[in-house]
Amino acid sequence: MSDRFTEIATGLAAVAKGFHARGWLLGTSGNLSEVVEREPLRLAMSPSGVDKGELRPEQLLAIDENARIVSAHEGKPSDESLLHLRIVKNRGAGAVLHTHSVWNTILSDLYASEGGVTIKGYEMLKGLQGVRTHEHTEFLPIIENSQDMPALAELVGATLNEHPAAHGFLLRRHGLYSWGQTLAEAKRHIEIFEFLLETMGRTLHIKGGRLD
Amino acid sequence: MSDRFTEIATGLAAVAKGFHARGWLLGTSGNLSEVVEREPLRLAMSPSGVDKGELRPEQLLAIDENARIVSAHEGKPSDESLLHLRIVKNRGAGAVLHTHSVWNTILSDLYASEGGVTIKGYEMLKGLQGVRTHEHTEFLPIIENSQDMPALAELVGATLNEHPAAHGFLLRRHGLYSWGQTLAEAKRHIEIFEFLLETMGRTLHIKGGRLD
Amino acid sequence: MSDRFTEIATGLAAVAKGFHARGWLLGTSGNLSEVVEREPLRLAMSPSGVDKGELRPEQLLAIDENARIVSAHEGKPSDESLLHLRIVKNRGAGAVLHTHSVWNTILSDLYASEGGVTIKGYEMLKGLQGVRTHEHTEFLPIIENSQDMPALAELVGATLNEHPAAHGFLLRRHGLYSWGQTLAEAKRHIEIFEFLLETMGRTLHIKGGRLD
Amino acid sequence: MSDRFTEIATGLAAVAKGFHARGWLLGTSGNLSEVVEREPLRLAMSPSGVDKGELRPEQLLAIDENARIVSAHEGKPSDESLLHLRIVKNRGAGAVLHTHSVWNTILSDLYASEGGVTIKGYEMLKGLQGVRTHEHTEFLPIIENSQDMPALAELVGATLNEHPAAHGFLLRRHGLYSWGQTLAEAKRHIEIFEFLLETMGRTLHIKGGRLD
Repeated sequence: MSDRFTEIATGLAAVAKGFHARGWLLGTSGNLSEVVEREPLRLAMSPSGVDKGELRPEQLLAIDENARIVSAHEGKPSDESLLHLRIVKNRGAGAVLHTHSVWNTILSDLYASEGGVTIKGYEMLKGLQGVRTHEHTEFLPIIENSQDMPALAELVGATLNEHPAAHGFLLRRHGLYSWGQTLAEAKRHIEIFEFLLETMGRTLHIKGGRLD
Repeated sequence: MSDRFTEIATGLAAVAKGFHARGWLLGTSGNLSEVVEREPLRLAMSPSGVDKGELRPEQLLAIDENARIVSAHEGKPSDESLLHLRIVKNRGAGAVLHTHSVWNTILSDLYASEGGVTIKGYEMLKGLQGVRTHEHTEFLPIIENSQDMPALAELVGATLNEHPAAHGFLLRRHGLYSWGQTLAEAKRHIEIFEFLLETMGRTLHIKGGRLD
Repeated sequence: MSDRFTEIATGLAAVAKGFHARGWLLGTSGNLSEVVEREPLRLAMSPSGVDKGELRPEQLLAIDENARIVSAHEGKPSDESLLHLRIVKNRGAGAVLHTHSVWNTILSDLYASEGGVTIKGYEMLKGLQGVRTHEHTEFLPIIENSQDMPALAELVGATLNEHPAAHGFLLRRHGLYSWGQTLAEAKRHIEIFEFLLETMGRTLHIKGGRLD
Repeated sequence: MSDRFTEIATGLAAVAKGFHARGWLLGTSGNLSEVVEREPLRLAMSPSGVDKGELRPEQLLAIDENARIVSAHEGKPSDESLLHLRIVKNRGAGAVLHTHSVWNTILSDLYASEGGVTIKGYEMLKGLQGVRTHEHTEFLPIIENSQDMPALAELVGATLNEHPAAHGFLLRRHGLYSWGQTLAEAKRHIEIFEFLLETMGRTLHIKGGRLD
């Protein structure tokens, strides 16, 4: 591996370990990627089926824009590599993270009929790139889950186009995607969404119904 | 200990420590085993009454197919060794894990009258061995708790026969059993079930009743 | 410090650190003790007002049967030393632990009008010393909180006499006390009660009322 | 950096790491400060936009009474430095901590119409500086959130004057501020408020309404 790839892989493995400890990547779920270079596109991608609490830097795969492995690995990139690639291209993202948390799973289902979760009025929103005030309204679209990855990638692309200001999206009963220009920004976005979804979910507990 | 046994014992101790940190093995509860060899059957088994947060590899016992200790230990194998042995024989499992979590305890009681918990439509299900889609329906049988271990082992065997596709089962107000061909697979299955039971339990909070 | 005292102090500091990480000893709350010798009675006792996540073995005080410091410390033993001493004498305990968790605080209030929490039918109860079956009924008495420590110690003594089978008690809106013949047993008992109180509290969430 | 500044910065970084692990400083939220000297006023202040789980001592900034950087840093002090300075001046605090937890966010909203959260009757209150009994009533004022920092600092000052006994305050849908004469005391106060807000929030879950 090049020094640059090693550095990227080390960063991704550290994020994976931290998120696994929080219970956001249990059971080998979720995946992580970071752009290594743009031309030609090369992504460091977590392999399929690996325990994220024990992900080692040397297990990160290098893939091309068609999700084919271009590093000397026997493994298999995550099934959802096509979604990562779509996000990278559509948003110009430098890193993409996907978590399966209890709260993102719950809210992805509760709000499915509305097409997304509307989050507004929280200071924490200010941590999203480009947001300057808690008076921001963030719409987190919910996309119906599917195992047809090329079709799902198309749907993700269409959703990103339809919601150009969105910093993430949910797959229904599946999980959260967010991204950033850097890995640190992507990690920050995930932490913010996880925090806000948990806050909204627990408020629903207390209020026993819809938030508004 | 042979090198192989040491390696297995080290792996089991690491899983025990991690699960204890998550609160799934509090108060010396729960137990863990892995097949060392098949002919004759030898299992590495956690001892009874040990703090799983401090389980050391050298404390793992070797037991035979009748749950008798065949290693040079003074200790006592877990009372539930007979259940582990039954699962190993019935499913051909390579490792068996048993956790006591708050959520598996709650759901094992709430769904007892239905004989099990029906879990469907979650992406996380795809992490169960052989499952290819979130459209899978997993039925997690609930068995009435008992202190008569030979009788309970019989009941476990009958339940496994009755539900050949099940990847785990619950003992009522007691805990979760799951298994896998390897320790890594068993750990993945436990994490998946714990995640899904927590997700369903918290959704029940919000909806204030049954899920459907 | 004698080697024996150092060993005991090291054990107590490790338990304190672990419980603090779980959120059971926040804000310098809670305290821990272990019998160093019986004749004359000497207790290793956590000092007052110390962050339990950073408790160092050399901070543990030695106190006598009247809660006077007999080690070369400037500090102040916990205000609740009299309660520890009472438990040691009444139960012949070797170690006493006192935690402030969110769940034990909530249930100590919710069940105050009944004089205690009745816990029955959970496998986890088997981890309490002398309990052989999940069919056990444990009554965890609730004592009204007070700042008059000698009076509270009397009340604790009377409660222990009234409930000779109890493995612990709650102080209302204050916290949990449990104990054991050894520190390991006391730790096990605390973990079991914390688990069961959380399980019952979360079940109350779902059922929206009393458990039975 | 002077030895004294280094020591302070090291302490702040350790608190930041611990609180981040508990989920109270996710997504680069929150901030921490400690008085380095009083005349002229110098504060060690966490920089803006940094992951608190990875805050390094050398990243702490020194600021003056107008929130201008006086250390050799390129960074930007937290936007909320003016609030820290106001608290230091108004309360004579030696350290100020600000957390964004799920529970403080929820309660800051639920009780906004009452102007604050009234907390009484909990033993944990005794950990607040100067409080001697659980019979204490603590009123935690709630201030409407704003991005106009000078105006918000004025409002904070007025609130502190109006509630001279308060050990902290909430910014609505934003977070908790508390402080102490030392960093240890400020940390203790935060842990106490976080504990009590979670306890009250979960009790609301169970009771399905107001606490009284």
